[in-house]
Amino acid sequence: MAKEKNSYSLNSKVVSDTTHELLHQRGVTIPEIAELVLFLQKKYYPALTMEECVHNVEMVLSKREVQNAVLTGIQLDMLAEEGKLLSPLQEMLVNDEGLYGVDEILAFSIVNVYGSIGFTNYGYVDKLKPGILERLNDKSTGQVHTFLDDIVGAVAAAASSRIAHRKQAEREVDSSDLNAESDPLNNGISPE
Amino acid sequence: MAKEKNSYSLNSKVVSDTTHELLHQRGVTIPEIAELVLFLQKKYYPALTMEECVHNVEMVLSKREVQNAVLTGIQLDMLAEEGKLLSPLQEMLVNDEGLYGVDEILAFSIVNVYGSIGFTNYGYVDKLKPGILERLNDKSTGQVHTFLDDIVGAVAAAASSRIAHRKQAEREVDSSDLNAESDPLNNGISPE
Amino acid sequence: MAKEKNSYSLNSKVVSDTTHELLHQRGVTIPEIAELVLFLQKKYYPALTMEECVHNVEMVLSKREVQNAVLTGIQLDMLAEEGKLLSPLQEMLVNDEGLYGVDEILAFSIVNVYGSIGFTNYGYVDKLKPGILERLNDKSTGQVHTFLDDIVGAVAAAASSRIAHRKQAEREVDSSDLNAESDPLNNGISPE
Amino acid sequence: MAKEKNSYSLNSKVVSDTTHELLHQRGVTIPEIAELVLFLQKKYYPALTMEECVHNVEMVLSKREVQNAVLTGIQLDMLAEEGKLLSPLQEMLVNDEGLYGVDEILAFSIVNVYGSIGFTNYGYVDKLKPGILERLNDKSTGQVHTFLDDIVGAVAAAASSRIAHRKQAEREVDSSDLNAESDPLNNGISPE
Repeated sequence: MAKEKNSYSLNSKVVSDTTHELLHQRGVTIPEIAELVLFLQKKYYPALTMEECVHNVEMVLSKREVQNAVLTGIQLDMLAEEGKLLSPLQEMLVNDEGLYGVDEILAFSIVNVYGSIGFTNYGYVDKLKPGILERLNDKSTGQVHTFLDDIVGAVAAAASSRIAHRKQAEREVDSSDLNAESDPLNNGISPE
Repeated sequence: MAKEKNSYSLNSKVVSDTTHELLHQRGVTIPEIAELVLFLQKKYYPALTMEECVHNVEMVLSKREVQNAVLTGIQLDMLAEEGKLLSPLQEMLVNDEGLYGVDEILAFSIVNVYGSIGFTNYGYVDKLKPGILERLNDKSTGQVHTFLDDIVGAVAAAASSRIAHRKQAEREVDSSDLNAESDPLNNGISPE
Repeated sequence: MAKEKNSYSLNSKVVSDTTHELLHQRGVTIPEIAELVLFLQKKYYPALTMEECVHNVEMVLSKREVQNAVLTGIQLDMLAEEGKLLSPLQEMLVNDEGLYGVDEILAFSIVNVYGSIGFTNYGYVDKLKPGILERLNDKSTGQVHTFLDDIVGAVAAAASSRIAHRKQAEREVDSSDLNAESDPLNNGISPE
Repeated sequence: MAKEKNSYSLNSKVVSDTTHELLHQRGVTIPEIAELVLFLQKKYYPALTMEECVHNVEMVLSKREVQNAVLTGIQLDMLAEEGKLLSPLQEMLVNDEGLYGVDEILAFSIVNVYGSIGFTNYGYVDKLKPGILERLNDKSTGQVHTFLDDIVGAVAAAASSRIAHRKQAEREVDSSDLNAESDPLNNGISPE
């Protein structure tokens, strides 16, 4: 019995809930990430709505691989902000050191979940820093978002990839309706 | 009209069907890949069946990212076999040159689809070369499988990751039945 | 003896020379790639010269991992241009299909050689398409550069990372001259 | 002046020294990593010495990308051991949770430094856990090495890739001596 109490058992709901809570606690809302998605995708899909973007961001955040990266990255940001890391890692994170790339590595594990087509979008928003990314990069606040800004850009890039896969599937469904062909949504298009 | 005829339109069913046809044409069957999955996972899940492994391999092969890698890799193998590549790429592929790592790179884009937990399984089967991987590595046949052996190992590794995610979800469903908690299958566990 | 003649033996000079020849044959010059590097880095290092950029591009191109990606990518572009690939891979490459990401995957193996800090620069130039990248993306020429444009952007991003590492090393050398400290260029800074 | 004193300035020697100190502090010696390299490479290079393996491990550890991963991974292990991470990240790290793959992601950034040919070696030792990896995986000690075991395997795999590149270069030098050809060590073979 004692053993059962102590034995480890992953609770996926807790992992998912904590991911959302930590994003919220660090000042990032789902609609703000969705705005980045709209920024990236509106030229390709003019009819794309904020509602769709929000939904796709939520789907990206529902992946375990993404949750692991979010939890780990935000944890490191928080510890750096509290000054609790060993030197020189502490200074590298607080100063968002240019030669430190672990934040980009975590970001890439997020982008990869929907495939390599998202790499470009990630790099683009990470460089331009539109919307929320500008605020996360403001070094004057005393807050440390060395990981979080990359993570947010990566989630937006992954959501953009998911939309690209979905829109293609929808296009083929429409086309197959006209041609009485089989449903491509059941033919292995979906990235999920 | 001519334009419409010529205009490009991706047909996802064709991409998916060709993936399966090329694997078959190059001598790889789904059950053979599933055997690798069973080899990798049976120690963790003793009750795992071949049927489940086959299903998980099929789900991996239904992903666009995976299909792109399979089509590209097999195409390069075939062209090398026919002697149609430029030198020295031709010789590097025919001889499975040790310092040529593009095959590993394509393999990794496959493994990544179900997250980083599959990296280890990929490296392990690629080194041990059990089952079909031994046959694909037989250099005495005149066939070139420089890409295909890595691809097959990567598909097996990705299917193993998919199983690990699913089994965890099932475990939590069972546990939540007992505890009248909410369904973790709807709580963002699923890798898909 | 016959065996010795036929036996495979990698000739690294041939691999390196062919990399340069194929780039040239496909219309890409080293200075054009260096221009992209200057575009990416001049805001960080105002004194950066074209000569330095050219040198860094050449150093990136001297890496085997990069050469493998260049040879493979250009080969696929050429075969697509000649209509020699199997359908639907042929159509996907000719049309630079949005859901086809193997070009990005090869690009990433190039960027990675100088570490993850180059991811952002790659995505940025790949999206903006300055200089030579615009020409490589002109679909009206009949030429296929589906892989090459990503490769060129990746080489420029890798060269930018190399510069960032070198400039830091130089800064520390200067500083250590003043402080009579040891030479950081011998202290494991160098990315090479 | 106060500003100058406080202003951040990366000291590469400190980063490098701390990497070595933390490895030592966590019970990992360079010769133990070198043993893994010997285990991986002796079948390909029977004359390979421990001295060479030690040297190649040291070269891998001299890379900034590798140092960043080592510092970050060990820091997370130490914080987990001290119980200072947020739940559920704390529990996931202490229990080396199977669906947590950030350790593999960091490991991959290490392997990548010498190219994709090291992926297989990494997966292989991570699965077999020879030598020091077995000790790092002993969960009965109360120590947490969730990141460190992957990092050590990755450093060994990267060192193995480095050796493969170097041995090829040496082979071509020998061959070119006989043939009075140019020195391949100056012809872009070297991975560094």
